[in-house]
Amino acid sequence: MLLDRIDSPDNLKLLSIHELRKLAEEVREVLLTKMSCNGGHLGPNLGFVEASIALHYVFNSPKDKMVFDVSHQSYTHKILTDRKNAFIDPTHYKDVTGYTEPKESEHDLFTIGHTSTSISMACGLAKARDLAGRKENIIAVIGDGSLSGGEAYEGLSCGAKLGTNLIVLLNDNNMSISNVNGGLYGHLQDLRDSKGTCSNNMFKAFGYEYIYEENGNNIESMISALEGVKDIDHPVVVHIHTQKGKGYKPAESNREDWHWFPPFNKETGEKRRSMAGENYDNLVADYLLEKMKFNPNLIAMCAAVPATIGFDKAHREAAGKQFMDVDICEQHLLSMAAGIAKNGGKPVVATFSTFFQRAYDQISQDICINKLPVTILIRNGSVWAGNDVTHLGWFDLSLLSNIPNLVFLCPTNCEEYFAMLDWSIDQNRYPVAIRIPRGKVIHSDKPVDKDYSKINKFKVTQKGNKVAILALGDFFQIGEDVAMGISDRLNFIPTLVNPRYASGLDSTLLDSLKENHHIVITIEDSIVDGGFGQKIASYYGNTDMKVLNYGLKKEFLDGYNAQEVLLSYGISSDQIISQISQIF
Amino acid sequence: MLLDRIDSPDNLKLLSIHELRKLAEEVREVLLTKMSCNGGHLGPNLGFVEASIALHYVFNSPKDKMVFDVSHQSYTHKILTDRKNAFIDPTHYKDVTGYTEPKESEHDLFTIGHTSTSISMACGLAKARDLAGRKENIIAVIGDGSLSGGEAYEGLSCGAKLGTNLIVLLNDNNMSISNVNGGLYGHLQDLRDSKGTCSNNMFKAFGYEYIYEENGNNIESMISALEGVKDIDHPVVVHIHTQKGKGYKPAESNREDWHWFPPFNKETGEKRRSMAGENYDNLVADYLLEKMKFNPNLIAMCAAVPATIGFDKAHREAAGKQFMDVDICEQHLLSMAAGIAKNGGKPVVATFSTFFQRAYDQISQDICINKLPVTILIRNGSVWAGNDVTHLGWFDLSLLSNIPNLVFLCPTNCEEYFAMLDWSIDQNRYPVAIRIPRGKVIHSDKPVDKDYSKINKFKVTQKGNKVAILALGDFFQIGEDVAMGISDRLNFIPTLVNPRYASGLDSTLLDSLKENHHIVITIEDSIVDGGFGQKIASYYGNTDMKVLNYGLKKEFLDGYNAQEVLLSYGISSDQIISQISQIF
Repeated sequence: MLLDRIDSPDNLKLLSIHELRKLAEEVREVLLTKMSCNGGHLGPNLGFVEASIALHYVFNSPKDKMVFDVSHQSYTHKILTDRKNAFIDPTHYKDVTGYTEPKESEHDLFTIGHTSTSISMACGLAKARDLAGRKENIIAVIGDGSLSGGEAYEGLSCGAKLGTNLIVLLNDNNMSISNVNGGLYGHLQDLRDSKGTCSNNMFKAFGYEYIYEENGNNIESMISALEGVKDIDHPVVVHIHTQKGKGYKPAESNREDWHWFPPFNKETGEKRRSMAGENYDNLVADYLLEKMKFNPNLIAMCAAVPATIGFDKAHREAAGKQFMDVDICEQHLLSMAAGIAKNGGKPVVATFSTFFQRAYDQISQDICINKLPVTILIRNGSVWAGNDVTHLGWFDLSLLSNIPNLVFLCPTNCEEYFAMLDWSIDQNRYPVAIRIPRGKVIHSDKPVDKDYSKINKFKVTQKGNKVAILALGDFFQIGEDVAMGISDRLNFIPTLVNPRYASGLDSTLLDSLKENHHIVITIEDSIVDGGFGQKIASYYGNTDMKVLNYGLKKEFLDGYNAQEVLLSYGISSDQIISQISQIF
Repeated sequence: MLLDRIDSPDNLKLLSIHELRKLAEEVREVLLTKMSCNGGHLGPNLGFVEASIALHYVFNSPKDKMVFDVSHQSYTHKILTDRKNAFIDPTHYKDVTGYTEPKESEHDLFTIGHTSTSISMACGLAKARDLAGRKENIIAVIGDGSLSGGEAYEGLSCGAKLGTNLIVLLNDNNMSISNVNGGLYGHLQDLRDSKGTCSNNMFKAFGYEYIYEENGNNIESMISALEGVKDIDHPVVVHIHTQKGKGYKPAESNREDWHWFPPFNKETGEKRRSMAGENYDNLVADYLLEKMKFNPNLIAMCAAVPATIGFDKAHREAAGKQFMDVDICEQHLLSMAAGIAKNGGKPVVATFSTFFQRAYDQISQDICINKLPVTILIRNGSVWAGNDVTHLGWFDLSLLSNIPNLVFLCPTNCEEYFAMLDWSIDQNRYPVAIRIPRGKVIHSDKPVDKDYSKINKFKVTQKGNKVAILALGDFFQIGEDVAMGISDRLNFIPTLVNPRYASGLDSTLLDSLKENHHIVITIEDSIVDGGFGQKIASYYGNTDMKVLNYGLKKEFLDGYNAQEVLLSYGISSDQIISQISQIF
């Protein structure tokens, strides 16, 4: 294997074009084999094999500095920079993350997992270089999908005026995570169709030199294009056309499904584990489609990830105008939803917990100050969700629940989730955020409330004494276990409460608990700092009530095991009961 | 006066062009007179008088819907829509806010005070209209300054593909709050210079019809331009050239200072109150300039508001390459700072508390996950700062202090502020946020610590017993008053603590307080929810310590009086002492 000879980018420079082509084949095979076992961002990585080889052939990393936007295309870069074993040897597959990671290699500058930041970061690298009087090349690699995020445009505008070396490599595969939608993509299409010669070139408009390379999957073409801009003394955009999923038929023909793909059979392209069966994604997609039939003003919206609410192609077609994917534009998504709600529409906007971080200001200003009835569905808001440090799902609760006017709901099971969603869509008074429960679908064996307009009214599901357990959202089941364990082992019946609202307190209930309770414990699937439990502790601060807050620690973890994390924070019924028994 | 005849936009339609011109003169005079008494966004409003009259002459508000970006140009709109008395009659000056406000008039759709959202909101209005099958015109009014914010581009991209009526009125006065900087502005310059005919038109690139109107301060030209797009069936950008500060000589010639201006003498243009004397803006500007001389890698950065750190023209020129204004791009600002820090630079980024809301994700992902030593200066983080509902300064603390790895410092006086800033710039281990003290400069009569690398080490400034007062940042002075009051009135010496760090707890100190204290009180210039005090309450939840948290309520207030607000929340030394005495 040629790969045997590649221990650092320097080794690449000794290969012939013919060998580089063969290397690309080897890399692609290695990527496919690893991803068929582990899953991964298959589509974008397969499309960027040749460009990555050309980058490291032409430039001198780590002296020259490359920033990979969202790092979904960085696997080949990792293979070429000291980390091939983590792709070749299955026992080392877990040695590297799916994102660029400075802890792994000096060739990785940043841990990056959110989109549209690469040009801005590259502007910073370039500016610091200029201040220090050095001369290295600074390269921002950004996909056409990531280019839709507003920050990319902010970076483009700033970068255009730096006046020194800045190379923006635009990897255009005519695809975001799902389809591309906005006017930007009509423009990129025109540029591709005209081989970069069409009028109204936005990159030139901003002041960039602009180079188009049609053959982004051809190593020779890519080397030539990059050699042409190496050591350039001004900002340049190199727009290359690549094929998403290149070299793997199933990924080439179904580019949306294969953007990220779970473990699969390499021969057939079939998933190793069936994802079929009941889940919250399918359920909410069907629910929304049905509700749309009776309400032409209801609209489901997402920012490039329609899968967050199960909107596959069939659902999108069935919804027609009542579905919108606004590209990777969370800020726009929330402001647009405010506009829709203001003019009589009924927007339901969904994305991952971690991506709402992009839209705090729009939720606060446009939606909450204006008290507009937008329904926000938060997916993966849980320690049980994605365990990459850039995609943690335990910040949204304290981030959003402290915004005035927002009703932040944490359903504990399927029926409660849909009752809350139904109430939210039908009411006109409040902005509402609902944290979609995480994990397998849990059904309630009791009827759930339909009306949530008594804001901050907690629900007592078991009346007891001495200890009250306030267990929020999908940690309610832990609360049930604690309640049962107390009855069994400590011989009294504690009170169990489903708070439902994370954004406010039920002071009537909290006051009533003082009569015959000594301990209140709170359990939440969120960092404790700024969350629900600390509000309870503060409320009881001037009383004799003991309050124990259980939740996650304010820290960044990467590639963690959720069960271990929970145990390390003392969040298991055994640990909680043991702590309670020490107080008695 | 012609204005006597204008009670609603309908009245406008009966006037001749000659009368409309006269009306513009009257409006401008009214605006000048009011702003000379009250201050206000003078520059943008004076430039948009004719366009506002033309808008209401051509369109039929409120059926047709106008969204005013950041609403800094909405005063004439207010005068023409039922609210002229609030501009003509000094006793009614306070009847209206400086922003569009639905509570005032059905002609105002949203409360808006942050930039770059208008196109997104207009997209939402248009989408809801289309779902409902109506036909009204939707107009987004956006200034060239606001166009630099990434969300404007997200909105432009989405709006281009709506396929129905959407009118983007781009009010180009070649000026943001301060100068404009990015590549976008070279493009707008080309468009103006060529009267809209230059190549590489970015609006056409996105798919918009594009119309250029050079005479944006000419009513006849504006009416003609707008009549041409009324009831259009597809998205259009109408790019108009106006003059910031039009019609008032001092504002025309010094457009930066007059963007917003305090009360002034209309004849001379002189401020009614001198702003001279020592303040934190001047002090930090001089400090940074001095520090830059010894550190060529130090760079001061802002997003369109250089005044937040006192960087007037002289300071900017003196700093040269070591100062950057990135336009209204908070997201880019923070990501770029991450890049600078990564490549050996020393970025100090500053903006208002409320605008950091735009960059939570970049602070969390790019700076804090990557642990890059960026110094963040938060201005106006206080109940004593701007009292507009869109600019509240009491959310930043709980927003940012709950981000892992960020050291959030709250200095209590001038010397401590500069010691913290100096430490932050010189260290390389932590991202640091510093809340600039608010109000008149308070000097310390004791030496302050120079080294803040013992993270979360609180400072005991008075050792006592029974009650410990933890008073954060610029509420430390209230803590001092409480401590003195307790000594005087309750006859014991309480402990007084300057916590300094809002992002973590000094558990050693907190544990030691258990020995001889019954009550801990916290005082912070921030909402209590998610803030510092609740962490203390949670820490002591399982003990006998009583904890009282003082701070602001989680609510949106507009045009409030800070002193009244503090009293209503019980935040005065009298109220706090009285509550303590009830416990004893």
